Amino acid sequence: MASQEIEQLTQALARLPGLGPRSARRAVLHLLKKRETALVPLLRALETVGDKLSTCEICGNVDTSNPCGVCSDPKRDLRSLCVVEEVADLWALDRSRLFPGKFHVLGGRLSALDGVRPEDLGVDTLIARVSGGEIDEVVLAMNATLEGQTTAHYLAERLESYPVRITQLAHGLPVGGELDYLDEGTLAQALRARRPVA
Amino acid sequence: MASQEIEQLTQALARLPGLGPRSARRAVLHLLKKRETALVPLLRALETVGDKLSTCEICGNVDTSNPCGVCSDPKRDLRSLCVVEEVADLWALDRSRLFPGKFHVLGGRLSALDGVRPEDLGVDTLIARVSGGEIDEVVLAMNATLEGQTTAHYLAERLESYPVRITQLAHGLPVGGELDYLDEGTLAQALRARRPVA
Repeated sequence: MASQEIEQLTQALARLPGLGPRSARRAVLHLLKKRETALVPLLRALETVGDKLSTCEICGNVDTSNPCGVCSDPKRDLRSLCVVEEVADLWALDRSRLFPGKFHVLGGRLSALDGVRPEDLGVDTLIARVSGGEIDEVVLAMNATLEGQTTAHYLAERLESYPVRITQLAHGLPVGGELDYLDEGTLAQALRARRPVA
Repeated sequence: MASQEIEQLTQALARLPGLGPRSARRAVLHLLKKRETALVPLLRALETVGDKLSTCEICGNVDTSNPCGVCSDPKRDLRSLCVVEEVADLWALDRSRLFPGKFHVLGGRLSALDGVRPEDLGVDTLIARVSGGEIDEVVLAMNATLEGQTTAHYLAERLESYPVRITQLAHGLPVGGELDYLDEGTLAQALRARRPVA
């Protein structure tokens, strides 16, 4: 029987997404056997991040500084703003510097089912940023789900009266996608948005 | 771009077995968003375990006490000793109290390829425990691999001169195993060790 302390560590790890009880146990064993090279670095990293963690007051990103690294980066294009549902989406788009502008995290999506209304999301702060006048383009980068697209439509309407270009991510075939295996919805969108061959 | 501190936390998590860079990033996001319910408990658990962590001087188990929980458990049968290769094997066998006795962790297996010799493993401490005279049975619970079985043979020879019963785990069909899908080696062992139907 593992001691109570080890059991608690296993449970704390097992609650992370992607780790079940079995893999958490393997991870704990690894941490126990490599105290100096695995357990201590993880402990220090958690301490540092835990101390400094904050939500960016401008965009809603989570980072160890406030304003966050993206918002305080002087090399970013202030005129483009990319609106995403979650922090995870911001990270995904920002991973390889795909988008040169700034971001805005809504903190969710409109959902009648879950009772999420516009006032539950960062919509007012978005409007405030756009009405500042510095922004030329707002990219609505919602998920290609029903709720994501509903949210995008709602935001497009709210932003209509401001002098900004409103765009959204292209829908179509994913890279490596085989027509044979793709759903009808994706195929319909790819067809509808077909482009002339250059 | 995530801050350097967050990047370090991601890397520390990505080094755990079962977590790659992608799932580590998801885990970090989870920790950042749930500071109080995920990050802090994990931090505390790591601190506690890191402080108390030690290798049991009797059996080689890792635990937060020394002697470990298994060795200091008075309800264990002192006369049975189960020899395993790694701490992970001890935990696996001990998980549902499958084995009522005590354990001995070798810390590896004999391997000509990796240059692991008897003196690199906890063989002398095993001999010392057995020669103490309290033990009736030694279960050799090595992995069913070439190196595991070589190690078991070697240990059986070394223990021959002591008045103990030496046994090893049964080999045969795993639970749910279908003959059609099992390898010839397993089938051969299952046939060789066939038993009369009760």
